[in-house]
Amino acid sequence: MSDSFKDYEELIAKYKEYSVLGSVTGLLHWDMQAMMPHKGIERRTDQLSLLSGMMHKMLTSEQIGELLDKLDSSSNTLTEEMRANVREIRHDYQKATKIPVELVEEMSREQSLCHEVWVKAREAADFQLFAPNLEKVVKLVAKMAEYLGYKDTPLDALIDQFEPDATTAMFTKLFDDVKAANVPLLKKILASPVKAKRDFLKTEYPPELQKQIGLDIMKQIGFDMEAGRLDTSVHPFCAGGTGDVRITTRYNPHAPQQAIFGIIHESGHAMYEQGVNRDFWGTPLAEALSYGIHESQSRLWENFVGRGRPFWKHFLPKLQSTFGTQLAGVKLDDFMLAINHVEQSPVRVEADELTYDLHIILRFEIERDLFAGKISISDLPKVWNSKMEEYLGITPANDGKEGVMQDVHWSGGSFGYFPSYSLGNMAAGQFWFAMQTAIPNMDAKMESGDFSDILHWLRENVHLHGRRFKRDELMQRATGKPLGTASYIKYLSDKYSALYKL
Amino acid sequence: MSDSFKDYEELIAKYKEYSVLGSVTGLLHWDMQAMMPHKGIERRTDQLSLLSGMMHKMLTSEQIGELLDKLDSSSNTLTEEMRANVREIRHDYQKATKIPVELVEEMSREQSLCHEVWVKAREAADFQLFAPNLEKVVKLVAKMAEYLGYKDTPLDALIDQFEPDATTAMFTKLFDDVKAANVPLLKKILASPVKAKRDFLKTEYPPELQKQIGLDIMKQIGFDMEAGRLDTSVHPFCAGGTGDVRITTRYNPHAPQQAIFGIIHESGHAMYEQGVNRDFWGTPLAEALSYGIHESQSRLWENFVGRGRPFWKHFLPKLQSTFGTQLAGVKLDDFMLAINHVEQSPVRVEADELTYDLHIILRFEIERDLFAGKISISDLPKVWNSKMEEYLGITPANDGKEGVMQDVHWSGGSFGYFPSYSLGNMAAGQFWFAMQTAIPNMDAKMESGDFSDILHWLRENVHLHGRRFKRDELMQRATGKPLGTASYIKYLSDKYSALYKL
Repeated sequence: MSDSFKDYEELIAKYKEYSVLGSVTGLLHWDMQAMMPHKGIERRTDQLSLLSGMMHKMLTSEQIGELLDKLDSSSNTLTEEMRANVREIRHDYQKATKIPVELVEEMSREQSLCHEVWVKAREAADFQLFAPNLEKVVKLVAKMAEYLGYKDTPLDALIDQFEPDATTAMFTKLFDDVKAANVPLLKKILASPVKAKRDFLKTEYPPELQKQIGLDIMKQIGFDMEAGRLDTSVHPFCAGGTGDVRITTRYNPHAPQQAIFGIIHESGHAMYEQGVNRDFWGTPLAEALSYGIHESQSRLWENFVGRGRPFWKHFLPKLQSTFGTQLAGVKLDDFMLAINHVEQSPVRVEADELTYDLHIILRFEIERDLFAGKISISDLPKVWNSKMEEYLGITPANDGKEGVMQDVHWSGGSFGYFPSYSLGNMAAGQFWFAMQTAIPNMDAKMESGDFSDILHWLRENVHLHGRRFKRDELMQRATGKPLGTASYIKYLSDKYSALYKL
Repeated sequence: MSDSFKDYEELIAKYKEYSVLGSVTGLLHWDMQAMMPHKGIERRTDQLSLLSGMMHKMLTSEQIGELLDKLDSSSNTLTEEMRANVREIRHDYQKATKIPVELVEEMSREQSLCHEVWVKAREAADFQLFAPNLEKVVKLVAKMAEYLGYKDTPLDALIDQFEPDATTAMFTKLFDDVKAANVPLLKKILASPVKAKRDFLKTEYPPELQKQIGLDIMKQIGFDMEAGRLDTSVHPFCAGGTGDVRITTRYNPHAPQQAIFGIIHESGHAMYEQGVNRDFWGTPLAEALSYGIHESQSRLWENFVGRGRPFWKHFLPKLQSTFGTQLAGVKLDDFMLAINHVEQSPVRVEADELTYDLHIILRFEIERDLFAGKISISDLPKVWNSKMEEYLGITPANDGKEGVMQDVHWSGGSFGYFPSYSLGNMAAGQFWFAMQTAIPNMDAKMESGDFSDILHWLRENVHLHGRRFKRDELMQRATGKPLGTASYIKYLSDKYSALYKL
């Protein structure tokens, strides 16, 4: 065995320990949300803090640094897959070693304080209360960006943590296109005489029946029930990886669509994790590419498939046989309008498919201008409200739950995170048209309850590659072009024109 | 701060990491039995093997060795509790460092092989198939005993792993007493004209109702539901520690007593863990004393409380209101006989309270004579069957599930484990009489559904001490004498004389 193969195997063995410990941490988090009794929190905090300290030490160890150095000069003898693993481990190693431990610890303290204040300030809708802590967090985040390094603006370094090789400039361009299409589309929809009837979704839907339907849908779209679970938690999420991926949801007895689409969304995340190449378990090649590409999978299943007409042509009769009284006489057309109802909500997490991106764009633009020094913390409520008016045509009733303080992200220092959500939509749009070319009679197949070709296409073109290709190369291979907005904009326009007879 | 306090704190910090990692391992095991999807096994194996390797490294680290050496000479400045922690950590450290890693690895391989062969040999009831592998395991176990060190016989070293400071000679003496009392008692019971009617326990008891009753009982006897859970698994067990202790059971629709007593048994284990001193979490002072004392808690609740007349005077009406048809017209006397029915079963896990110890004594005597060189592996079936005849008056139908190969323990090298079970019974007997002196009207309290004084007594006298005192000191403090058999023998004699009118 040549030296570089030996070095590679050593590197992988080290990284795998880090990765296995990460999978343990994932299980502890899942358990904390879905299973843990109340008084277990002290013990759990000790467990998580020990493991995260160990993981940081493992990833930033001198041994990994030396192996990466050695592999730098000799990597041409490795296979392409091995080189991709080395590249990705180097990326993670550099990210982890660039920031001084003291800064990480200071950040962690300030985040906790800021989060506490945020909870109170949000409840009281008092931005002045929140501002000083937010200011501190933003300064620390900007300091982290300096350590991480960037070309144009500190936000680039922050975005890269969630979406490698994406930049502020790139998102500005993409989002300008989406905005230019969606703002007028929203106005046309609001002016349309077609209105959704939604009363039948507000009657009583027993949670245990919702769960049964959810499980049926999971199985039918291809979630491997031998490699995962469905449980209940306050905030729905997906955790785990190959062989064991668990999703959670919550059940609102007066809004069954929340759990149903939540389950489809999380199943999309889960099927990505279930679909990576198991031979590479414990290495970057068996990890998801980025937050944005992860979101492309959840959104493709939730919105493109799950809120589509062919899907409900198949599932509505089943839903009606479970909820006979509640859905008696509801026609497919009524149902489609009800689950795709567009409205001007001030709250992101309640937004429909169309307006969701406008919420994201607003946040992204504020982050961009904040880190470019064009606006300051004290401007946030004003800027927020004026953009709300401009993009969604509404003015939030307050700065708390309906306004600038509605999201948890900023209090925790997660700047650069929001754009991933919309990147997921744009990527999903591009996958959607590409798979329609590849899959004959895709609509007819969905109408008959057969989703296997869709899952197969995603497996082959996205899941199996893990972090092997960078995002644009993945998009190029899967769809013939780098990430753009055309497909997504066309999809939205087609969909809503048909629904609202525009 | 003096040097020895500083050394102590360093030692505790190191040990706590080991302990916290152990608690993570416990959760992974719980999850594997109670939650994990089928295909998660590969991932779980990687996780467990990484953590167990890390734990071994942590416990046997040079740093811990050096700190223990330093504390040896200066420990007189520490408090009594601190000295107890140092003593117990030294015990664990020595146990872990005495055995060479190669032997542990060889043992682990041979155990796996032997376990595989045992499954087949047990099914085929073919001891010849099992013997060569068992021989190898016994040789390795004997080798381990040499490394661990002992005074009289290798079995002493093995027993010490589960029950520190217990010896073969000690168990021989205790068991001779129990045998001398129980063998004649069993004969008298079998000759009694009183016979249990058990048909009403064999009708249909829906599992979800069994679970409801189980939860009610758990809460009533003092299991803290905010610091634990009840789930389902193939083999019932208890896992976790302070703040988060989880038990499992299984439900047989045609034998509700199995789940009910299983739940009470595991709750006994769990309440021990819930009752340790939380201030010491992560140190030996917040760990259970030994396997035997753990078992004293489960058996005290299961048998002394749970199969007693006062308990059912309170709970039978509740049980009858849940299972109206199934238990219609069943009198307390009938019920007591049914759940305390004594029979000559060849299978340990199906044995009743009285005959259980005879199964244990038989196994202990075989282990004792095997490691003393008085019998050989090939003698095992013959010796087994002749002792079965002598103690229980029956001859097993085969060497497999009904005979010498029924238990998993020996295939995994767990020699010296069995006596802990009976030690639990003897200790429980002694606690039982001691608490009756301390608690006025204990029967009347149980009859009214009040078990708080019992739990309180156990908390104060057992749980809160963790590993602070050695077993005999604990027994002396709690009951006024070291571990003996008199209380237990009296308890059994009183109980069965009343039930069977002897």
